[in-house]
Amino acid sequence: MPRYTAPVRDMQFVLHDVLKVGEAGIPGYDDLDPATTRAILSEAGKLAQDVLAPLNRVGDAQGCVLRDGTVRTPDGFGAAFEQLRDGGWTALDCDPAYGGQGLPCLLATAVAEILSAANMALNMYQGLTHGACNAIQAHGSAAQKAMYLPPMIRCEWGGTMNLTEPHCGTDLGLIRTRAEPRDDGSYAITGTKIWISAGEHDLCDNIIHLVLARLPQAPEGVKGISLFLVPKILVNDDGTLGARNALACTGLESKMGIHGNATCVMAYEGATGWLVGAPHQGMRAMFTMMNEARLGVGLQGYAQGEVAYQNARDFARDRLQGRAATGSATPDRPADPIIVHPDVRRGLMDQKALTEGARAFVFWGASLIDRARRCDDAQAEALISLLTPVIKGFLTDKGFETCVLAQQTPGGAGFTRDLGLEQFVRDARITMVYEGTNGIQSVDLVGRKLAADGGKPLMAFFDLVKDFIAQASGDAAFDAQFLSPLKAASGDLQTAAMFFLNKGMTSPNDALAGSYDFMHLFGHVCVGLMWSRMALAAHQGMEAGENADFLTAKLDTGRYYMARHLPATKLHLARIESGAAPVMALDEAAF
Amino acid sequence: MPRYTAPVRDMQFVLHDVLKVGEAGIPGYDDLDPATTRAILSEAGKLAQDVLAPLNRVGDAQGCVLRDGTVRTPDGFGAAFEQLRDGGWTALDCDPAYGGQGLPCLLATAVAEILSAANMALNMYQGLTHGACNAIQAHGSAAQKAMYLPPMIRCEWGGTMNLTEPHCGTDLGLIRTRAEPRDDGSYAITGTKIWISAGEHDLCDNIIHLVLARLPQAPEGVKGISLFLVPKILVNDDGTLGARNALACTGLESKMGIHGNATCVMAYEGATGWLVGAPHQGMRAMFTMMNEARLGVGLQGYAQGEVAYQNARDFARDRLQGRAATGSATPDRPADPIIVHPDVRRGLMDQKALTEGARAFVFWGASLIDRARRCDDAQAEALISLLTPVIKGFLTDKGFETCVLAQQTPGGAGFTRDLGLEQFVRDARITMVYEGTNGIQSVDLVGRKLAADGGKPLMAFFDLVKDFIAQASGDAAFDAQFLSPLKAASGDLQTAAMFFLNKGMTSPNDALAGSYDFMHLFGHVCVGLMWSRMALAAHQGMEAGENADFLTAKLDTGRYYMARHLPATKLHLARIESGAAPVMALDEAAF
Repeated sequence: MPRYTAPVRDMQFVLHDVLKVGEAGIPGYDDLDPATTRAILSEAGKLAQDVLAPLNRVGDAQGCVLRDGTVRTPDGFGAAFEQLRDGGWTALDCDPAYGGQGLPCLLATAVAEILSAANMALNMYQGLTHGACNAIQAHGSAAQKAMYLPPMIRCEWGGTMNLTEPHCGTDLGLIRTRAEPRDDGSYAITGTKIWISAGEHDLCDNIIHLVLARLPQAPEGVKGISLFLVPKILVNDDGTLGARNALACTGLESKMGIHGNATCVMAYEGATGWLVGAPHQGMRAMFTMMNEARLGVGLQGYAQGEVAYQNARDFARDRLQGRAATGSATPDRPADPIIVHPDVRRGLMDQKALTEGARAFVFWGASLIDRARRCDDAQAEALISLLTPVIKGFLTDKGFETCVLAQQTPGGAGFTRDLGLEQFVRDARITMVYEGTNGIQSVDLVGRKLAADGGKPLMAFFDLVKDFIAQASGDAAFDAQFLSPLKAASGDLQTAAMFFLNKGMTSPNDALAGSYDFMHLFGHVCVGLMWSRMALAAHQGMEAGENADFLTAKLDTGRYYMARHLPATKLHLARIESGAAPVMALDEAAF
Repeated sequence: MPRYTAPVRDMQFVLHDVLKVGEAGIPGYDDLDPATTRAILSEAGKLAQDVLAPLNRVGDAQGCVLRDGTVRTPDGFGAAFEQLRDGGWTALDCDPAYGGQGLPCLLATAVAEILSAANMALNMYQGLTHGACNAIQAHGSAAQKAMYLPPMIRCEWGGTMNLTEPHCGTDLGLIRTRAEPRDDGSYAITGTKIWISAGEHDLCDNIIHLVLARLPQAPEGVKGISLFLVPKILVNDDGTLGARNALACTGLESKMGIHGNATCVMAYEGATGWLVGAPHQGMRAMFTMMNEARLGVGLQGYAQGEVAYQNARDFARDRLQGRAATGSATPDRPADPIIVHPDVRRGLMDQKALTEGARAFVFWGASLIDRARRCDDAQAEALISLLTPVIKGFLTDKGFETCVLAQQTPGGAGFTRDLGLEQFVRDARITMVYEGTNGIQSVDLVGRKLAADGGKPLMAFFDLVKDFIAQASGDAAFDAQFLSPLKAASGDLQTAAMFFLNKGMTSPNDALAGSYDFMHLFGHVCVGLMWSRMALAAHQGMEAGENADFLTAKLDTGRYYMARHLPATKLHLARIESGAAPVMALDEAAF
């Protein structure tokens, strides 16, 4: 049975030593003193460890069951969800005007990592509700906010996003679901949506569906899509529940993982809905919340990596096989623990370096969202928009890779359900797919974000790296181990960006053929930057006489990343520079 | 429902145009004329497509069931296994003296790819029997061979290998299973074995277990292990079945994949067995057959990649989403098929280039086994011993990667059980683990194979690459696209090998910390060599006026591999040269 312990200390290090939230000058960050964040994260950790993690395998084994239109979640999910709700964990960064606690996105992000690592399928129910709240908060009318947000923020009611249809997922311009206006200002929504996570379940009294649909005579393609709010149970003016709406879950997907989360086929048969925002502005409404939603998926990826790593590490400490090549480490035992073997360590170091680097990257991203929102900082908004596809695409690829590496640590036992590592692999796999496949992330990055605002956000990123290197430089060993490789990697990224900017105009396929490698190249530079920032913080901490063992481990792990992962930028650059020809040469019939 | 079509033409290309079996001068290869191999492969393909492939999902969904010591295989497996048996598919390369067909290992390998791609779990039942036959053939007495081989070669009886125990897998020196001699020359075998693939099932009348155990007063460690033949049902002198032996399947593992193959816990309780080979020579007996067994696992890896690729490709041709960046490819349809998008093609090209390169590599390996055996060629034996850990470790990693890439092609649908791609991922995952984890393969490569015979096999490999480059050189485009990158990659491999040979004596951890990267570096050079050989064959074929479309596709795919995969050698070299320090620095307590 896998275990999970919240990495509170590592999180505290990122919050206070790396991001230095106390000095960030972002409204609301003053409340985030070390004692407060430690208390909140530890409390979340307790819930995660004692309540959510033990249900993770239960959820996987039982899955969700659809009967007569109702979805039963796995045993124990209901009670655990109540604890999440009653503890106020669903409302951390929501608007106090509607019952939220008004805490920064950064703190909610740290808590989300803990809850998601412990039980991704269960935590998705509240994560999706949170996303729907954000959309209503940003685009709903005052009346809609007043009616729907308070129970949704408390997670008494759930929320969903309905985009995909059987014939279209990525290409939302093909959507067929119709919205017919009625005399009372509502709309009759008709169509079929698939892939609706948490579309129907027994954890909440009501479910508020946000549905993309077309108004009559809407323009073709994505410019003719509007967003509608469609409750499972209609809500009376006084907020009490009324009649059942004309919608139903007609099927559940049988999936590779996240069995505890219901992935629904939803049929809308003239269901009553209300327009959210302006007509034909549905895509805009969806995209407003995309940065935070995609950051949340990047988080899910490395959160599964974290829990997988913890269990692989424990196995490697306990399991006795073979002897260390440099002489037995434990001669009194029949064999040494496998953690003495260099190749086992190599796997564990990969897992550790990737996960801790990813955490720092995501926390930094969350702090950019806070800065953009709370300081109305357009530069921070532009930067997080640029980084969002990297966070989502790179970190979910690496999170899945981390789970596969962790599964490999115990050998055969990693393939069994008992040890539970294989579930982390299966659950993490979806993060590379949903909220826009990672291929789509890379196209968004190269096709849209790279040249946004004349390339200014990208230039700002390079300046930020340059400034960091200039400020941090001085110690010869630090320069050699961190700053030089970071500079080289950032140089590779610049070369690749120039290649795209030059080719993009005349030969879009040259850019698109290298988009995936560019996303990874960018990801490595970002994580390399974060490891350099962590190493600098560790140096500073050691000079200040803080815990040397903990900080030495950070430096060692950072050196590992810089020496063994960051050189991948050269490979990605070589692939990018090979251009479109190798990718596009083959005739379609020859595949 | 996934489909499978045997890639007969691609196989014929490797057999006849690349390996040129007709000119190889290996006894038995004269029979392998193109018409004969085409007929055999097509026939195997029919069986695979019509009978085995449709049962692949059935096997996954139903799994195996243990009741009262008996394992029931999934519906249809029994009838399909009978067709395998009756068609003579289990006896292709077995000794004609015992009812085999005496065909080369190479042809059996090509057939095994087809059967394994269609239904890995089902085909394992005969693959394991084949391995047990090989061990008996090599080490059994004349009487043992006469009694056991004929029904095993016909697969009326199954066979297994029993190595792992609950407390030891990789480190077989820790084995505790005992063998007590009895007066009649038999032994009483007592102990528990785990991970026994096909340890109990209903496909065969009897199962012959080969079991590693210790004789009384055996030396400690691996030098005190002997091999025993332990039938499920004792065999009378006339070959008829007698009493049930004192052994039982006491449990089935619940696993991530290959659900249709029973992974058994086996309890031996004073079971009657017979010594195979000399006392204390059990490890030697196991290792004799290791090259072929590990080649078989490397094959399983890319075979799953092949079937995954076929289904991803079909999806990419059918699914309409978005428009080509260079202008619509099919303006009459609501959207273009996703195969027009460069990033979708990138994924498909990765899958295709890896799979076809892997096939050529494995076929080459099988031809080396044939040459070693049939020509008693010590150099071929030494070369395949060197390459075996690369074939097993690199090709199963890449086979799994191919399945994950294929699963990504359809986006969300790839995560569903319906499409079936997720099963290929789960099934392929085991190949990285069993028959020695890939980490162990890398340690075998660097710790044992690299310096074997003073490094002569390694030098012979480099000479082989050099000679090929010298002979093939001449055409400027071919040199630039294939031979130069191959030469550079081979140079990286030499640099890495020198690093290890220099460090190996004084600092084993420096070699072991880079072993995994070395295995991958080596794998890339081998597959780069095979793509160069395929490209040369394609050039020659085109000059001879053969099918230009097919050969052009080979050249295009080869160029893709050389341009976009082979540069990975530089990354692996950089990691290797970073040495042991980054890997070993962290204190065990700091993980």
